[in-house]
Amino acid sequence: MSVNPRRVIAELKELRELTGDENGAQRVAWTATWRKARAWFESKLVGLPVEHHYDAAGNHWVTLPGASQWSLVIGSHLDSVPNGGWLDGCLGMMAALEILRGFAGEFDGHPPITIRVVDWADEEGARFGRSLLGSSAFAGTDSIAADRVRADKDGILLEDALRSCGVEIDRFPEARRERDGVAAYIELHIEQGPVLEARDLPLGVVLGTKGVERHSVTFFGQEAHSGSTPMKVRRDALASAAKLALEIRDIAGRHEDAVCTMGSVKTFPGIVTAVVGRCETTLDMRDLDADILAEMYREARGASERFAAEEKCTVEWSRIWSIEPVPFHPMMIEFCDAAIVETAGISQQLPSGPLHDAAEVARAGVPVVMMFVQSLGSISHNKIENSKEEHLELAVTAFDLLARKAVRWIQEVQPDD
Amino acid sequence: MSVNPRRVIAELKELRELTGDENGAQRVAWTATWRKARAWFESKLVGLPVEHHYDAAGNHWVTLPGASQWSLVIGSHLDSVPNGGWLDGCLGMMAALEILRGFAGEFDGHPPITIRVVDWADEEGARFGRSLLGSSAFAGTDSIAADRVRADKDGILLEDALRSCGVEIDRFPEARRERDGVAAYIELHIEQGPVLEARDLPLGVVLGTKGVERHSVTFFGQEAHSGSTPMKVRRDALASAAKLALEIRDIAGRHEDAVCTMGSVKTFPGIVTAVVGRCETTLDMRDLDADILAEMYREARGASERFAAEEKCTVEWSRIWSIEPVPFHPMMIEFCDAAIVETAGISQQLPSGPLHDAAEVARAGVPVVMMFVQSLGSISHNKIENSKEEHLELAVTAFDLLARKAVRWIQEVQPDD
Repeated sequence: MSVNPRRVIAELKELRELTGDENGAQRVAWTATWRKARAWFESKLVGLPVEHHYDAAGNHWVTLPGASQWSLVIGSHLDSVPNGGWLDGCLGMMAALEILRGFAGEFDGHPPITIRVVDWADEEGARFGRSLLGSSAFAGTDSIAADRVRADKDGILLEDALRSCGVEIDRFPEARRERDGVAAYIELHIEQGPVLEARDLPLGVVLGTKGVERHSVTFFGQEAHSGSTPMKVRRDALASAAKLALEIRDIAGRHEDAVCTMGSVKTFPGIVTAVVGRCETTLDMRDLDADILAEMYREARGASERFAAEEKCTVEWSRIWSIEPVPFHPMMIEFCDAAIVETAGISQQLPSGPLHDAAEVARAGVPVVMMFVQSLGSISHNKIENSKEEHLELAVTAFDLLARKAVRWIQEVQPDD
Repeated sequence: MSVNPRRVIAELKELRELTGDENGAQRVAWTATWRKARAWFESKLVGLPVEHHYDAAGNHWVTLPGASQWSLVIGSHLDSVPNGGWLDGCLGMMAALEILRGFAGEFDGHPPITIRVVDWADEEGARFGRSLLGSSAFAGTDSIAADRVRADKDGILLEDALRSCGVEIDRFPEARRERDGVAAYIELHIEQGPVLEARDLPLGVVLGTKGVERHSVTFFGQEAHSGSTPMKVRRDALASAAKLALEIRDIAGRHEDAVCTMGSVKTFPGIVTAVVGRCETTLDMRDLDADILAEMYREARGASERFAAEEKCTVEWSRIWSIEPVPFHPMMIEFCDAAIVETAGISQQLPSGPLHDAAEVARAGVPVVMMFVQSLGSISHNKIENSKEEHLELAVTAFDLLARKAVRWIQEVQPDD
């Protein structure tokens, strides 16, 4: 067997020692600790027959040239949230490196197609609130004008933080050049959800990333004295919001994998002695099917208007952000399914609720698939994030099999050059 | 007729000019503007045959000695909330002064019983969060140990703010001496609620102040990713809270005048991408009947526990504050009713949801009643607080009638001294 899963786990622990503290991983993008993690990763390339460079958006590309310039890209991210876990992102990076080593050790170091590894810059968006930054530059879905003036909690601008790392945001479009010759993309990640654990399965194949409709929904009633205002004459904005908080569970519940979340409620004046005059809420709706997502949005909006009317209130919606569902590639899904079955005996198909760089790559037209490994307790973005080591080992083995299936497919279907 | 209601309105406007700005009244207790209002009020006493002094809690007492040392006390407060209205508190003070003038102008300045006017110190509690401060010292229901270390938003301690106005909190108990000879107490106030306006009535008689149960109710669920966590496995603390926000309307609705309010909801982590792991709410329950109030509390508590269980959450209750219902005096209620009927043709009995100094006086065992005048749009604690001037005029006339009925009653029932 060409890959050594134990080495991946050992290197993840080495990285945790180097870039974590008692609160967890501290590899926030565009910080010194993140750069230390990237320098450490570079040190692992010494002795491999590879070229490596950073593109105009700060993505790190490692290339093992093959007989064909068509390439399979294996990617993930080294950056973390503050106080993050030991697997989110870096599992995918260390697995990618291990598979690269495998290909470098065969075929006299000259595989049939080119194998590339990419470490995307700033997947998490933890410091500036803009996730998938590097991969969006690659895909051409960047939003430079809006992003350059984003500030961190100390008031430092995104544009300036990038410059201090040698990245000029105006040159982001040059990162699109890295798309040349990319024939397929694969990414290994922890699930960050409960589906595989609930079914006691180590691995799953990701069907795509769910589309997201993210809205601010504000109800307007009438602030009133809690002691002097009879129940019957109240126009309680919180009552409308409470009805919606409960209704969204039915709206999502009508569909297999749909989710709808009211994550934030703010009450104004928000004091114990006043009926709520204004209630600001947020809704986050997700599904892999664009039609279902649109239906959920319509239903939630209609319900909010009905509840507002019932409570003699009004309601206003404002879109915070949305993204369409990104289905992954059917053939790549099949390869991933087969690789998991060959390794673990049984596979599970599931959509991804969280977004991933893979979605941006798919939006650029590249055939993409992701593999998930079971998360314990659904906990991520936290130092107690964990997966069983036996599952991580199975994941590296299955992911290597997927890479080999993809290479064979690219060999078959891509023209020589 | 002995009182001049137009003068009361003119003086209220004079006070507004002197102590208000473009945002409303600024007579917050223990501030320079409040002291300016009190000095202005003192200036109105010049030429009247009265003694006046400040007691150990900063309450201002004005005494017109009568043939008997038994006294009728007419009280209210000059202090306001920040950006307050032109009537809350000071209507009662200026009406009291006008009635005092009336008695001083009759009986050769020597009425059958003693007439006293009191301006309670810090009814609103706007700066330190402790309302009814002066009247609680009078009633002996003060809470010196807890109150002395209360701080305003600038970190100034209540104890020090009082001292800068010449009031030593340790001497509060001396204010109880003012109870000597007090035979009855009356207070005129704006309703601050919608009951009289809805019935198109100018005046009402207050049956008492409702008891209050004020609690912090916190639901604990499990924070989880809004994208990766299926609806069925969520433990959504907000869902439990939403059910309670709706249920309290039924709990209060089973009783005539009961109210129950969820005034504040806070969600944690409170971000658009996370299921709510902890939801902090407040409940404020009020009724004039202690048994009904206790029943509402039991029902709300039971409901919260049922909803928490349904959502696989837990719930914790913590009492913020409570006060028993304070019913006013049956005979005084009858006098007030009669005075209103004689003036306006029709009266309305109603409980007071908001607390008033009159409740503290009643807790000291003094026969008490309050008269309410209609508020426009239920709005108070705001510069747009208002009442019709014709209603204010009726109020002063009816309130004077009430004072005379009370004086006659005191004459009849109190022993000579």
